[in-house]
Amino acid sequence: MKNRILKAVGVLAILSMTMFQSNAQFRRAPSLVSPQINDDNSVTFRLNAPDADKVTINGSWLPGYYGKKADVSKGDYGIWSITVKDLAPNLYTYAFLVDGIRVVDPQNPQIMREGAYFENFVIVPGKEAEVYAVQDVPHGTLSKVWYPSPTLNKNRRMSVYTPPGYENGDKKYPVLYLFHGGGGNEDSWASLGRANYILDNLIAAGKAKPMIVVMTNGNSWSAAAPGETPVGENTERPRDPGMNYRFSFEKSVVNDVMPFIEKNYRVIADKNHRAIAGLSLGGMHTQTITNSNPGIFSYIGVMSAGLMDAPQFGWNNYDGEAHKKQLKALQDSGVKLYWIGCGEVDTAKKINIDLRKLYDDIGFKYVYRESPGGHTWENWRLYLSELTPLLFK
Amino acid sequence: MKNRILKAVGVLAILSMTMFQSNAQFRRAPSLVSPQINDDNSVTFRLNAPDADKVTINGSWLPGYYGKKADVSKGDYGIWSITVKDLAPNLYTYAFLVDGIRVVDPQNPQIMREGAYFENFVIVPGKEAEVYAVQDVPHGTLSKVWYPSPTLNKNRRMSVYTPPGYENGDKKYPVLYLFHGGGGNEDSWASLGRANYILDNLIAAGKAKPMIVVMTNGNSWSAAAPGETPVGENTERPRDPGMNYRFSFEKSVVNDVMPFIEKNYRVIADKNHRAIAGLSLGGMHTQTITNSNPGIFSYIGVMSAGLMDAPQFGWNNYDGEAHKKQLKALQDSGVKLYWIGCGEVDTAKKINIDLRKLYDDIGFKYVYRESPGGHTWENWRLYLSELTPLLFK
Repeated sequence: MKNRILKAVGVLAILSMTMFQSNAQFRRAPSLVSPQINDDNSVTFRLNAPDADKVTINGSWLPGYYGKKADVSKGDYGIWSITVKDLAPNLYTYAFLVDGIRVVDPQNPQIMREGAYFENFVIVPGKEAEVYAVQDVPHGTLSKVWYPSPTLNKNRRMSVYTPPGYENGDKKYPVLYLFHGGGGNEDSWASLGRANYILDNLIAAGKAKPMIVVMTNGNSWSAAAPGETPVGENTERPRDPGMNYRFSFEKSVVNDVMPFIEKNYRVIADKNHRAIAGLSLGGMHTQTITNSNPGIFSYIGVMSAGLMDAPQFGWNNYDGEAHKKQLKALQDSGVKLYWIGCGEVDTAKKINIDLRKLYDDIGFKYVYRESPGGHTWENWRLYLSELTPLLFK
Repeated sequence: MKNRILKAVGVLAILSMTMFQSNAQFRRAPSLVSPQINDDNSVTFRLNAPDADKVTINGSWLPGYYGKKADVSKGDYGIWSITVKDLAPNLYTYAFLVDGIRVVDPQNPQIMREGAYFENFVIVPGKEAEVYAVQDVPHGTLSKVWYPSPTLNKNRRMSVYTPPGYENGDKKYPVLYLFHGGGGNEDSWASLGRANYILDNLIAAGKAKPMIVVMTNGNSWSAAAPGETPVGENTERPRDPGMNYRFSFEKSVVNDVMPFIEKNYRVIADKNHRAIAGLSLGGMHTQTITNSNPGIFSYIGVMSAGLMDAPQFGWNNYDGEAHKKQLKALQDSGVKLYWIGCGEVDTAKKINIDLRKLYDDIGFKYVYRESPGGHTWENWRLYLSELTPLLFK
């Protein structure tokens, strides 16, 4: 171990720069190894920070996670390190905090991004984690596409995954419309959610049907992710987080997004080849769309979301009887799968229980999956990997 | 100003969290404004870092830039700030250093990425800067596409820009093959180079012809950008940075990349509708490909690169007479534009002078553009915005 670190420091000292490296390279951090996956599946994280007073790490393996930090120890040469043991195969996310400031690990190019928020990730190998990794299998195409939204009166941005073979064939494909949560954007499912690689791996293994996945921006007041919005666009979130913006987005999915996809991509444009799913706020979007439009989607997934009867979230006009009528019409329209996933300690757990109770009361059929953990991307990645194999079968 | 900061601190204190924000949102920094473009085109940068001992900023406006930092001052509430004056309209990049550790500005979602390297950017508005911004104009599609490379014996990843209207039309388009520099990857031109937005803006203004831009990974030993490579791939750069890997990449462009594009995209597959350009190492790739393949490209751009006769860079076998013969054949094949760009203080300036001297000696025609500054993305963005209007005319 010591030798490895000394070697890394040596590399630092002799870091060579050639004229033909672009300028970014000049400023890239030297060759310290972090994270390092050890033979016993422990992981060592290292940071070169000789002037720091305190370094902690915020990692998804920590109980509680979001508030929780573990101390990182200062060693020789100003290199801080921590070894985390007993990590089960999975994708883990982390960031360092250097004197209270969040920084990504400059040694680790595996980074997830949502707007100005970043975190690193490391995949501890093993069967359960394979689905999240970039494997040497045929890869689909991930595109950032702009589409007109007359409903929201702007051009907007979406991510579109087309499966391997799409570009050089003439086959038509089913479509999954997949929504992010509050605070997210059209990049979230591909970046934090690993959606394109999950699909690549499941399709290659014959576990999921080849499908197109459409991930648009669920924030109706915005054209695109932060940093990708046109100059002069008002990107302020409106004060009322409830009805005003929410239902306009849902309308735009049916009026703008679906027609755009069905016109410009080779899709099978019928109910049995359309799926819709979303997490958290996106699970609410999914419900609103499917409740109001029976007979459009045969496959529906609601992740970490629940009954929308809570005035504290801006849903002031909940009408239980109207909701039951909608669900009856939806069930009568022929839903092949209504899938609900929620974490054991999910912040949406209570309203998820309320939702399932309603469904049970009226005999609305669904499949329920409860997983350990909370309102996290760890669960949403897991749900995507479990839901997509059930679609279009 | 004071009121604004106090307000920001107030927002920090009452930062609201709702259940339907995804977990990223919980950890996003509060609403401090940074960067703030002031009425006099000065820019104020702020960072909330109460526990930091020292904060500096590394900004592209600083003379020298790569080594240069300016001190950021600590103010009330642990908020550090600096106001930079007299910035001409342009895109400026920067990062903070907190106790020596490089961090992105958590308030600014405008971020460029190349592997594990990040920097923020801010666009000081004005005529010269408009071409780099996301404008409310029709946007092309930016796709991450994997293609087979029998030459390099792996599937590899490229970025492809298709112009507005590509998806819903049947028109065929010309193609620009565009190469990054050493240390870069297939994401560089779109991220650090703003290529897709530059093209959007020039096409919308009628200044550039709608075209497809193909940006593949110029590192022959690697399938994809760091973090996007398949598990188990050996991503070590080979020891010999010269002949071994360089020419195999160039062969793969002609043997693998071009056939893939011409088979799977609607392109006009003739010489007068093919352009090729690259920066630094990519300018060397451009030369190698065009020198060895006369009659394929009518438009050629060499940015911040020069004569490949330098053994210190691994080009041991330079044969001046063979090179002249190649150039004669290239000229005879009918090149409509051979464009060379270089910075006044570019690290490639000397070999660029050598290259132009050779061209002058043998009467090989070219257009030369010299700009202030050095071997930087500031120049390469500028060159792309100047070169693309000259193509396919």
